[in-house]
Amino acid sequence: MKQEIKAPKFTWIDIHNPTEHDIKYLKKKLNIHPLVLDELIHPSPRPRVEPYKDYVFMVLFYPIYNVETRETSSRELNIIVSKEAIITSHHETIPPLKTLFDNSRFNKQSQKIYLSEETGQLLYYILSAFWQNCFKKLEKIDKRINDIEKHIFSGKEKEMVLEISLVKTDIINFWRIIEPQKEVLESLLKEGLKFFGQTLIPYFSDVLGTYERVSNTLERAKETILALEDTNQSLLSTRINEIMKVLTILSVVMLPLTLIASIWGMNFPKSLPLSNSPMGFWLISFLMLTVLVVMVFYFKKKKWL
Amino acid sequence: MKQEIKAPKFTWIDIHNPTEHDIKYLKKKLNIHPLVLDELIHPSPRPRVEPYKDYVFMVLFYPIYNVETRETSSRELNIIVSKEAIITSHHETIPPLKTLFDNSRFNKQSQKIYLSEETGQLLYYILSAFWQNCFKKLEKIDKRINDIEKHIFSGKEKEMVLEISLVKTDIINFWRIIEPQKEVLESLLKEGLKFFGQTLIPYFSDVLGTYERVSNTLERAKETILALEDTNQSLLSTRINEIMKVLTILSVVMLPLTLIASIWGMNFPKSLPLSNSPMGFWLISFLMLTVLVVMVFYFKKKKWL
Amino acid sequence: MKQEIKAPKFTWIDIHNPTEHDIKYLKKKLNIHPLVLDELIHPSPRPRVEPYKDYVFMVLFYPIYNVETRETSSRELNIIVSKEAIITSHHETIPPLKTLFDNSRFNKQSQKIYLSEETGQLLYYILSAFWQNCFKKLEKIDKRINDIEKHIFSGKEKEMVLEISLVKTDIINFWRIIEPQKEVLESLLKEGLKFFGQTLIPYFSDVLGTYERVSNTLERAKETILALEDTNQSLLSTRINEIMKVLTILSVVMLPLTLIASIWGMNFPKSLPLSNSPMGFWLISFLMLTVLVVMVFYFKKKKWL
Amino acid sequence: MKQEIKAPKFTWIDIHNPTEHDIKYLKKKLNIHPLVLDELIHPSPRPRVEPYKDYVFMVLFYPIYNVETRETSSRELNIIVSKEAIITSHHETIPPLKTLFDNSRFNKQSQKIYLSEETGQLLYYILSAFWQNCFKKLEKIDKRINDIEKHIFSGKEKEMVLEISLVKTDIINFWRIIEPQKEVLESLLKEGLKFFGQTLIPYFSDVLGTYERVSNTLERAKETILALEDTNQSLLSTRINEIMKVLTILSVVMLPLTLIASIWGMNFPKSLPLSNSPMGFWLISFLMLTVLVVMVFYFKKKKWL
Amino acid sequence: MKQEIKAPKFTWIDIHNPTEHDIKYLKKKLNIHPLVLDELIHPSPRPRVEPYKDYVFMVLFYPIYNVETRETSSRELNIIVSKEAIITSHHETIPPLKTLFDNSRFNKQSQKIYLSEETGQLLYYILSAFWQNCFKKLEKIDKRINDIEKHIFSGKEKEMVLEISLVKTDIINFWRIIEPQKEVLESLLKEGLKFFGQTLIPYFSDVLGTYERVSNTLERAKETILALEDTNQSLLSTRINEIMKVLTILSVVMLPLTLIASIWGMNFPKSLPLSNSPMGFWLISFLMLTVLVVMVFYFKKKKWL
Repeated sequence: MKQEIKAPKFTWIDIHNPTEHDIKYLKKKLNIHPLVLDELIHPSPRPRVEPYKDYVFMVLFYPIYNVETRETSSRELNIIVSKEAIITSHHETIPPLKTLFDNSRFNKQSQKIYLSEETGQLLYYILSAFWQNCFKKLEKIDKRINDIEKHIFSGKEKEMVLEISLVKTDIINFWRIIEPQKEVLESLLKEGLKFFGQTLIPYFSDVLGTYERVSNTLERAKETILALEDTNQSLLSTRINEIMKVLTILSVVMLPLTLIASIWGMNFPKSLPLSNSPMGFWLISFLMLTVLVVMVFYFKKKKWL
Repeated sequence: MKQEIKAPKFTWIDIHNPTEHDIKYLKKKLNIHPLVLDELIHPSPRPRVEPYKDYVFMVLFYPIYNVETRETSSRELNIIVSKEAIITSHHETIPPLKTLFDNSRFNKQSQKIYLSEETGQLLYYILSAFWQNCFKKLEKIDKRINDIEKHIFSGKEKEMVLEISLVKTDIINFWRIIEPQKEVLESLLKEGLKFFGQTLIPYFSDVLGTYERVSNTLERAKETILALEDTNQSLLSTRINEIMKVLTILSVVMLPLTLIASIWGMNFPKSLPLSNSPMGFWLISFLMLTVLVVMVFYFKKKKWL
Repeated sequence: MKQEIKAPKFTWIDIHNPTEHDIKYLKKKLNIHPLVLDELIHPSPRPRVEPYKDYVFMVLFYPIYNVETRETSSRELNIIVSKEAIITSHHETIPPLKTLFDNSRFNKQSQKIYLSEETGQLLYYILSAFWQNCFKKLEKIDKRINDIEKHIFSGKEKEMVLEISLVKTDIINFWRIIEPQKEVLESLLKEGLKFFGQTLIPYFSDVLGTYERVSNTLERAKETILALEDTNQSLLSTRINEIMKVLTILSVVMLPLTLIASIWGMNFPKSLPLSNSPMGFWLISFLMLTVLVVMVFYFKKKKWL
Repeated sequence: MKQEIKAPKFTWIDIHNPTEHDIKYLKKKLNIHPLVLDELIHPSPRPRVEPYKDYVFMVLFYPIYNVETRETSSRELNIIVSKEAIITSHHETIPPLKTLFDNSRFNKQSQKIYLSEETGQLLYYILSAFWQNCFKKLEKIDKRINDIEKHIFSGKEKEMVLEISLVKTDIINFWRIIEPQKEVLESLLKEGLKFFGQTLIPYFSDVLGTYERVSNTLERAKETILALEDTNQSLLSTRINEIMKVLTILSVVMLPLTLIASIWGMNFPKSLPLSNSPMGFWLISFLMLTVLVVMVFYFKKKKWL
Repeated sequence: MKQEIKAPKFTWIDIHNPTEHDIKYLKKKLNIHPLVLDELIHPSPRPRVEPYKDYVFMVLFYPIYNVETRETSSRELNIIVSKEAIITSHHETIPPLKTLFDNSRFNKQSQKIYLSEETGQLLYYILSAFWQNCFKKLEKIDKRINDIEKHIFSGKEKEMVLEISLVKTDIINFWRIIEPQKEVLESLLKEGLKFFGQTLIPYFSDVLGTYERVSNTLERAKETILALEDTNQSLLSTRINEIMKVLTILSVVMLPLTLIASIWGMNFPKSLPLSNSPMGFWLISFLMLTVLVVMVFYFKKKKWL
C-alpha cells in the first residue's frame, strides 16, 4: 500500500508491504538503482547506511514488545532520502512512523513543523520519533524491575526466578536490536555532512544523543536486573539450604533410635538382654529418649539447629 | 504553598505543591510558556535540561532514604531560571533546598553569599547543596558496609545475607537515581555557557566535580558490597557443606548397623545362626561395634571427618 | 596446484598446496627473499604483516566451521603483494577466495571490478570478501542463540546445558581466530600508506570498519550467550532444588513412622504395651496416621511443601 | 605535642595530637583562617585539597595494617603549606612521616636533601615517602597470595576459604583508602601550578606516577585473589560433591538390603516363604549378596563409583 | 662468572652470579655509582628504569616455566647501558640472553647485526629477544587450553577441574610477571629519547608493540580459560545433580516399602491383620509392589526420572 504526501520542497512516499508494482513506480519516478529498490522487498540481515551519488539508503530496525508472547522482536524500516523525495518502506506497521505520517497528512501544525523544510529535517523527525519512542518501553522495563524488587524482599524468591529471567532476556533482546544502530547514526553523522550539509549536523547529533540516553538507561536496567538476580539467588539458596539442613537433622535424629529399636527386634530368645524383664520396654524407651535429648542438645550447641 | 524572597537583582520563588493558582501567578508575572508551567504540576519521567530563549527549565531528582521501609526513593525538583527570577517547585519537601531557602530568608550572612549575585550563582548554590548532601548518605552506607564486614568474620554469615541484599539494593537504587543526572550537569555546562556566560563555567564544573566524587564513592561502595557478598556466600556455603557432610556421614554410619540388626530380626526359627546360642546377642553386638569402628576409621583416613 | 590470471597491470598467482617446484618458479619470476617463500610451505603460528622493500608479506587466518565435529578451526592464507604481482597461497581451500578467483577468471563483469586497477585494489577485494563472509557465520550463531532462548523458556533447561556450552565455545574460538587479525589490519593501514599510497587508505579503513562490525556483533553474541547460560543455570538449579526438597521431605515423613513400627517390633514379650490387646495394631496405626498428619501440616505451614 | 625544625627558607611544624593551645600558637604565628585550624582538631570524612590565597590545606589518609586484628585502618594527616611554613598535624603516629621528620632533625645529609629548598620540595618528599611506603604493604599482600596458592594446590582448600576472604577484604579496604586520594594528587597537580610554580610540576607528577603504580599493583593483587577464590571454590565443591556422591551411593546400597531383611522380619507364621526351611536364612543372605553385587556393578558401569 | 665481548664501538659484559670482585672491576673500569652496582648483587622487588647522567639502569624480570613443579617463576635481569659499555647481570641463566650472547661471540653474521652499531641497538635486540621468547610460552598455554576443551566435551569434566585451575594459575602468574614491565618499556621510550636520541625511538616502540601483542594474547587466553572453567563447572554440576537426583529417588522409593515391612513386623500376635492368613505374606508383597509401581509411575509423570 503506497501513500504520498506533497510537501513544498519534496514528496514523502510511505509504502506498507512494497510490491513489484510499487518498485516499478519508484524506478520510473525517481532515478534509483534497481538493486537498492530490490532491498525494499527482501528482508535485510542488519542495519546500515549506504550513501549513493543522489540519495542515501538506510536500513533501521525498530524494537516491538509483544505482550502475549512476552518477546521483543524487531521490525525493519527502509528509508531512501534524496533531495526531492523521502521514501519509507516497511512490511509491518511501525507505530511512531505511522503517527508521524498521519500527523503530517491531517494536522496543519505538524505539517508546518515536519514538511516545511528539506528532506534532511524530515529524516531527523523520523529518527527522533523512532528513538524517543524507546523511552516508553524503558519505563515499562523499569516498572517490572521495581515490582521484582518488592517481591524479592517479601519472600517470593521462588516465583521471581522466572520473572527475572524473562525481564533479563527482554532487556538483552532489546539491547541486541538497538546496539548495532549506533553505527548507523554515527555513519549518518559522517556521510550526512556530505549529503545534507553542515546545517543538519546538530540535528543528527541530537538523535545520536537520544540514542546514547536510551543505551545508558538500558545499561543501567541490565546492571540492576543482574544485581537483583544475584540477590534473589543468594536469598533463595540460603533459604533452601536452611530447609535441607533442618530436614537432614530430622533424619539423622531418627536413625539411632531406629537402630536401637531394630537391635531389640533381633531374634535372640536366649541372649537378648532385658527381653523377659517386666520393665524391659520402658528401660529401652528411656534409652531412646536419652539419645534423642543428647543429639538435640549437641546440635543446638553446634548451632546447627 | 508559595514563598518569595526578594534579592537585589532577582526574585526567588519557592513553591511547595504547586496549584493551578500558582501557575497562573507565574504566567502573569513571568513570561513563561504554559507547557513548561504545566510540567510543574505533573511528575516527569526523567531528569533533563531544556534551554529556552529567556530561561532554562530543569528537572532534577533528589534521593531520599526512608528509614522505616529501608528504601531509597526519589523526589522531583523543578527549577526555572531566568535573568529576573529563579523558581523552585516540588511536591514533597527536599531537605537541602529547604535549609538553603530558610537560611536565605532569615540569616544575614547567608543572604550575602547566596543572594547578592545573579540567578546563576544561586543555581550553583542550590545544585551544590543538592550534591554535597549526598555525601551524608554515602557515609551511612559506608557505616553499614563496615558493620557487615565485622559480622561476617564473627560467624554471623546467615544473618548477613538479607542485610547485604538490602544494602546492595539501596546502593543500586541510589545509583539509578543519581546516574542519569550526569547528563543534566553536562548539558548545563554546555547550555549554561550561552545563557549564564563564561563566569559561571567554573561553578558548574565544580558541581560536576562533586557529582563525579559522589559517583566514584558509590562505585567503590558497590564493588565493596559485591566482594562482601561473594565472601559471605563462600563462607556460608563452606559452613553448610561441612554440616551436611557430617550429617550424611552420621546417616551412613547408622545404616549398616541397622541392616545387621534387621538381618537378625528375620523370622527363620530353624536357620538363623547363633539365634539360640546364649552368647548370640553379644556376638552380633560385637560385630556391629567392629563395623562402626572400621567405618569411622575409614572416614578419618579419607579425611572426611 | 598453481593458477595464474593476467590482469592489465599485474599477475594474480593462486597456489593451492605450494610445492618446492612452485617456490622455485616464484623465486625465478619475482625477486622475493627465499625465507619469505619458505613460509608459504610451513604453517605460521600467528597472523602478521611484514613490509619489505618491494613487496608486503601477510599471514591471515580464516575461520571455518566444521558441521560434523561442531568445531571452528582456522585456515591459513599467505599473501605476497608487489607492484607487478599478487600471490595467494594456502594449503586448504578458502571459500571466499576461491569464489573471488573463479569470478576473476570467468566473469567479465567481475574482471572489470577486480582486475582493472593496481594490486592494492585487488588486495582490498580479497580482504573485504574475507570479512564480509564472517557475517554469514555470525547469522548462524544468532540463529542457534535464538533457538536456545526458546527452548530454555519451554522447560528444556537440562537439554540446553550442553548446547549452550557448545555455542559458547564456538563463539570463543571464532573470537580467538579473528581478534589477533585486528593488528594485521591496523598495521596494514600504517604500512600500506608507504607501499600503496594515499588512495588506498579509505579502502583499507573500510576493511577495518567491517572487522569492527564483525567484532562488535561477536561481542554481543558472547554477552547474550553468557546471560542465557546464567538464566539457564538459575532456572535449572531452582527446579532441581525444588525436586530435592520434596524428595527429602518424603524421606523425613517416612522415618518417624518406621521408628514407631520398629519400636513395636522389639522382642519384649512381657513388657511391650498393647502387645496383647486385641486393638493394639489399630491403636498404633492410628498413632502413625496422627504423626503423618501433624508432619504434613507442619511442613505446609512452614511453606516447605 | 608540637615540634619545630628551622630550615633556611621555612619552618616545619609537626603536631602530634593538636590542642587548643597549639591552634592558638599557629593562629598567632601564621595568618591562617580559624576554620582551617579547627579542622586540625576534628576528624575529616574524606581526603581533599583546599587552595587558599596564601596557603594550601590538605587532608590525606594513610593506610595502617594492624597485625593483631588483621584489619587495615586509616590514619588522617593534615598538611598546611605556605611559603614560610609547612605544618603537619595528626592524632596518631604516621610511621613514614615520623622517619622523615626525625631524619630532617638529626641527619645532616637528609637535611641537605629535604630542607635546603622551598616548602614545595619538602611537601614532595612527604607525599613521596607516604606512597613509597605502600609498596612494603603490597609485598606483604603478595606473599600471602603466594602462600594461599601453594596451599590450595596441596589439598588445603577448606582451610584457605577464610584466609582468602581475609586477604580479599584487606585488599579492598586498602583500595578504599588509597583510591579517593587520586583526586587529591590530581588537584594538587592543577592547583600546585598556581601556588608552587612550574618547577614543582615534575615532582608532583612523579608522586602521581607512584600512586598509579601502587594502584595498578593493587588491581593486579585483586584480580589474582579473585581468580584464586574461584579456583578454590571449584576445587572445594568438586571435592565435596564427590564425597557426597559416594556417601549417597553407600546409603542407597544399604536400603534394598534392609528392605529384604525387614520383609523376612514380618510376622506371617503361616505364609512367610522359606521361614521354616533349614536353608532359609542362607538363601535370603545369598539374595542380599546378589542384590549388592548387581548394584555395585551397575554404579560402576554408570561411572558413578 | 664474567664474560666480555669487544664490539667496534662498545664492550658487552655479561655477568652470571656477580661477586664483590666483579663489582670492583666494574667500578674501576666504568664510572658507575656504587649504589647502582650494589643492586646487581641483591634481588630487586620490582622492574624499573632509572636514568642517570651517563648511563641507564634497568631491572627486568623474565618468566620461566618449570615443567616439574608446573609453576611459572621469574628471573631477574639487571642491565646497565652507557655509551661505551652494556652490562647484563643475572643470578640464574636466562635462555634468550644466553643465545644472543653466544651468537654474538661465535657467529660472524650475528656479530654484524648485533654489535656493529651503538649500545642502544644491542639493548633493542636484548629486549626484543626477551619478549619474542614469550610467544613460545603462549603457544604452550594455547595447546593446553585446546586439550582441555577437547576433554571437557568428551565427558572428562571431573579430571579437568584441577587441570583448568593449574592453567589458570599459570596464566595469572605469567601475567603478574609481565604486566609491571609495561611501565619499564614506556619509561624507556620516554627516557630513551634523551639518552639514545631520536633514531632508537622506532626500535623501542617496536618492543612495546611486541609487549602489547604478548599482553593481548595472554588476555585472550585468560578469557578463554575462564569461559572453559564456567562451562566445565556447569556441565559437571548438571551431571552430579542428575546423579544425586536419581540416587535420592532410589532412597525415597525404598522407604515406604520398608515402612510396610516394619509395620507387619510389629509384635501384635492378637491384632495384626492377615498375620495368620495363609495368603498374608503374598497380599502384603502385592501391596508393596503396588506402592512401588505407583511411585515410579508418579516420578515418571513428574519427569523426575
